[in-house]
Amino acid sequence: MLLLRKAVFPGIQQACRLKSTPSRLCIRVCSTNDSFQPQHRIPAFSGDNSSTRGWRVMGTLLGLGAVLAYHDYQCKAAQEPPRIYTREEVKSHSSPETGIWVTLGSEVFDVTEFVDLHPGGPSKLMLAAGGPLEPFWALYAVHDQPHVREVLAQYKIGELSPEDKAPSTSKTSDPYADDPIRHPALKVNSQRPFNAEPPPELLTENYITPNPIFFTRNHLPVPNLDPDTYRLHVVGPPGCQSLYLSLDDLYRFPKHEITVTLQCAGNRRSEMTRLKEVRGLEWNTGAISTARWAGARLCDVLAQAGHQLSETEAHVCFEGLDSDPTGTAYGASIPLARALDPEAEVLLAYEMNGQPLPRDHGFPVRVVVPGVVGARHVKWLGKVSVEPEESYSHWQRRDYKGFSPSVDWDTVDFDSAPSIQELPVQSAITQPKDGETIESREVTIKGYAWSGGGRAVVRVDVSLDGGLTWQVAELDGEEQRPRKAWAWRLWQLQAPVPAGKKELNIICKAVDDSYNVQPDTVAPIWNLRGVLSNAWHRIHVRVAP
Amino acid sequence: MLLLRKAVFPGIQQACRLKSTPSRLCIRVCSTNDSFQPQHRIPAFSGDNSSTRGWRVMGTLLGLGAVLAYHDYQCKAAQEPPRIYTREEVKSHSSPETGIWVTLGSEVFDVTEFVDLHPGGPSKLMLAAGGPLEPFWALYAVHDQPHVREVLAQYKIGELSPEDKAPSTSKTSDPYADDPIRHPALKVNSQRPFNAEPPPELLTENYITPNPIFFTRNHLPVPNLDPDTYRLHVVGPPGCQSLYLSLDDLYRFPKHEITVTLQCAGNRRSEMTRLKEVRGLEWNTGAISTARWAGARLCDVLAQAGHQLSETEAHVCFEGLDSDPTGTAYGASIPLARALDPEAEVLLAYEMNGQPLPRDHGFPVRVVVPGVVGARHVKWLGKVSVEPEESYSHWQRRDYKGFSPSVDWDTVDFDSAPSIQELPVQSAITQPKDGETIESREVTIKGYAWSGGGRAVVRVDVSLDGGLTWQVAELDGEEQRPRKAWAWRLWQLQAPVPAGKKELNIICKAVDDSYNVQPDTVAPIWNLRGVLSNAWHRIHVRVAP
Repeated sequence: MLLLRKAVFPGIQQACRLKSTPSRLCIRVCSTNDSFQPQHRIPAFSGDNSSTRGWRVMGTLLGLGAVLAYHDYQCKAAQEPPRIYTREEVKSHSSPETGIWVTLGSEVFDVTEFVDLHPGGPSKLMLAAGGPLEPFWALYAVHDQPHVREVLAQYKIGELSPEDKAPSTSKTSDPYADDPIRHPALKVNSQRPFNAEPPPELLTENYITPNPIFFTRNHLPVPNLDPDTYRLHVVGPPGCQSLYLSLDDLYRFPKHEITVTLQCAGNRRSEMTRLKEVRGLEWNTGAISTARWAGARLCDVLAQAGHQLSETEAHVCFEGLDSDPTGTAYGASIPLARALDPEAEVLLAYEMNGQPLPRDHGFPVRVVVPGVVGARHVKWLGKVSVEPEESYSHWQRRDYKGFSPSVDWDTVDFDSAPSIQELPVQSAITQPKDGETIESREVTIKGYAWSGGGRAVVRVDVSLDGGLTWQVAELDGEEQRPRKAWAWRLWQLQAPVPAGKKELNIICKAVDDSYNVQPDTVAPIWNLRGVLSNAWHRIHVRVAP
Repeated sequence: MLLLRKAVFPGIQQACRLKSTPSRLCIRVCSTNDSFQPQHRIPAFSGDNSSTRGWRVMGTLLGLGAVLAYHDYQCKAAQEPPRIYTREEVKSHSSPETGIWVTLGSEVFDVTEFVDLHPGGPSKLMLAAGGPLEPFWALYAVHDQPHVREVLAQYKIGELSPEDKAPSTSKTSDPYADDPIRHPALKVNSQRPFNAEPPPELLTENYITPNPIFFTRNHLPVPNLDPDTYRLHVVGPPGCQSLYLSLDDLYRFPKHEITVTLQCAGNRRSEMTRLKEVRGLEWNTGAISTARWAGARLCDVLAQAGHQLSETEAHVCFEGLDSDPTGTAYGASIPLARALDPEAEVLLAYEMNGQPLPRDHGFPVRVVVPGVVGARHVKWLGKVSVEPEESYSHWQRRDYKGFSPSVDWDTVDFDSAPSIQELPVQSAITQPKDGETIESREVTIKGYAWSGGGRAVVRVDVSLDGGLTWQVAELDGEEQRPRKAWAWRLWQLQAPVPAGKKELNIICKAVDDSYNVQPDTVAPIWNLRGVLSNAWHRIHVRVAP
């Protein structure tokens, strides 16, 4: 009798032994005591009534000789008695050299040998290396099933020391001490203020970015606001009273829900830094994420306060409830014409992917300005006013502007450049990773593409030869409404690896519906703040012999 | 006594002899008989009351020793007796090798030696080489003054043969026989249908392009329409009657006037052709021009016909009164949302720079769609209708679309790409000309920059070293309204020529207020129709030793 061990993921099947009848293929997981447990019998490919399907799977599995042999070894190894480890010890095991350990509850697992067999790919499991699995399983619910726990059980090497609890988060004089707990998958660019991005292999796993790994760009400590006493101050026009809106007041406006991609102006800054130093956080390709936002439309709230479109140019200024030690709050502004245009769909959002806003994303209320740079989507919103001039905040006037590559900190004149509002067309590759070794037959390239101002991405070109020839990628994700393409398109290209190539220079570039394109290279758009980094995205991979 | 010969242009002053008093500098023109004529005395720098200014000018002129000596020679040469020439003979003298002749009325002039002294620059005078001066003097009224005629008189070499009149334009069966007479400065890319662009040195001479040299993009013969019987058919919504609007009817709508730059999708196609053959006219940098347009707003006319914004996507289809031998008219469409948006300022224009539309530009009525590709600005407008789909015309569905460089005529799927509406950011150098030899001390670089969709140009970067370093150009022309930057910015940069350089690779690139930039190179945006050619514009010049 053959016993099949299979994690119910697409892709890889693992087997210790296989047992089947022509009419019913049974799969069970090899547990630590390795006895046959009927309660773990599950039908292969639920919903598949074809008995021949079972035979095809069996055929595939029979080809996995090496894997089977390895697992017979592994099943025995997992039977050793448990030992006690500290979190510190687990943390020090996070690479192939040291061995790769993870925890689940109080159990410790050495998954070094499993990494390459992980159905979601090795790189995803590596995100959890040296730490707990729970935050990742919370993201990808497919893991939290009995047969997955059984796969894991065989890699158990011990227990966490009962005294070794997670480090306490007791209050101190540190202004960041009250910041929320973050998801460990986030790549932290700055802890205080907290700035972090999801790793590329998670970023485009979902069209809607899960809240815990949505990129976080904070300028100041995260305020801890009481939703019951929260009031949004909306300054009225001259002669009119201000509004002080509670959350319940905001809920009474028509609820408007839209999918919007947010991108930090500094996304992909690291590519500029590689050329020449810039001032700013080292974002890679992950300072961009997409969520389903719901809230009141800003135009409705402004109308209720008595505002209307003015003949002269005016601006809607936003103030956050986050502030520095001098009491200066984060601030930004957008043109009044955009704020009052119902078609621009500017939101005072109180929901993110069906949940109240997470604290890192502006609880209880933030601005969402579709098609516009992240810096104007003010979080922990405290005050809205209409002014004849742009916000006087540092972030509106002395930051988030683009300059010629020739401008340095001695010559920069911040008044000479417009504040960034709509962003230019952008795209990046998220799979494979730069430096990775790929299979020699076929490569699947994935990534995202987006443009500002509601301009839809109409095409993504991909090159495997450094830009000499191009192939058109397939666009996934939601079709966008005309002039309101607020969300990204994910894309992918499956292409044969050109014969005889030992390495590939892979590039992507996107085109939006104004037929704007990305510039070829970084140097001519380099700027001293490292913003607006949207040159072709390039990675270099090796081809397995 | 010195006698000053000066054409009243900015820049170069020429002198035979100079006469002055400390309080009044008198300029007179050296005529063929070279006698002093008091009636040609004009004050130098009218409006300048400073007596010291005269001395400064005299100092400048005293440095022009070589020019003065040359002109004494030239004044004598012009006294030879006149002879009789044919237009054909004049036409054969249009280069430095053959000598450069021009005509004014019935007089023939050999201006070979004057070309380099032309106050407007040699290249401008060369536009008239071998033909009549009148069309150029009509454009630049500064010429039509007595002292300019006297400068010219000294170069007279004879008279046109009285029998040698301009070739007749009698009617034939040629469908293009009734096309209007065009300005000779236009560089003709195709005679039938007529397609022509102004030469770069005239293009940016004026912020508003004079009507006679505005680029012309015709797809069919030019109709000859009677303004008295002209009717615009505006199809009403279901259940409503159509409108048939006379010109007087259109004049009764509020008159709306805006400055708008039009650009053909094929502008700068010749740079793509240099890489690899494309199908299309060989436009250089001149398939772009700017005019002041006036007419009725399309939204007002559609509202009068009973149209309103629909919940589903709809399109406004335009039909021209120009048609091919099968009766198929030119047609195109724009989204209804743009047509009905008063802020988008779409016009049914009947005036161009204060004049009725010239025949080549759509007399009596054309569409003007600010920020959108020229192909949608339908000329000789006959019919407007609102349809659920885009226009079924060839030019909407099988032309004016962008594709990946990998797509060829065997693989192209026109349905896979959106029709071009808003255009991407664009700029080009108009001075100096590619291949020109420039002075060794300083170079003045001029050009235009524009972007589609009402996005303002916020910066133009210029490189003298092939893109290694950049300088920021000065933007001229009208400040644009936010979100309605329908017109171009002219720009210039005066820069010292780097010491020791024998040649310069000059580049320009523009940035719009969505911070979109131009791509570095042509190859990655090459497409089989040669549209959307907006890579950095590059010229190569030699530096005079």
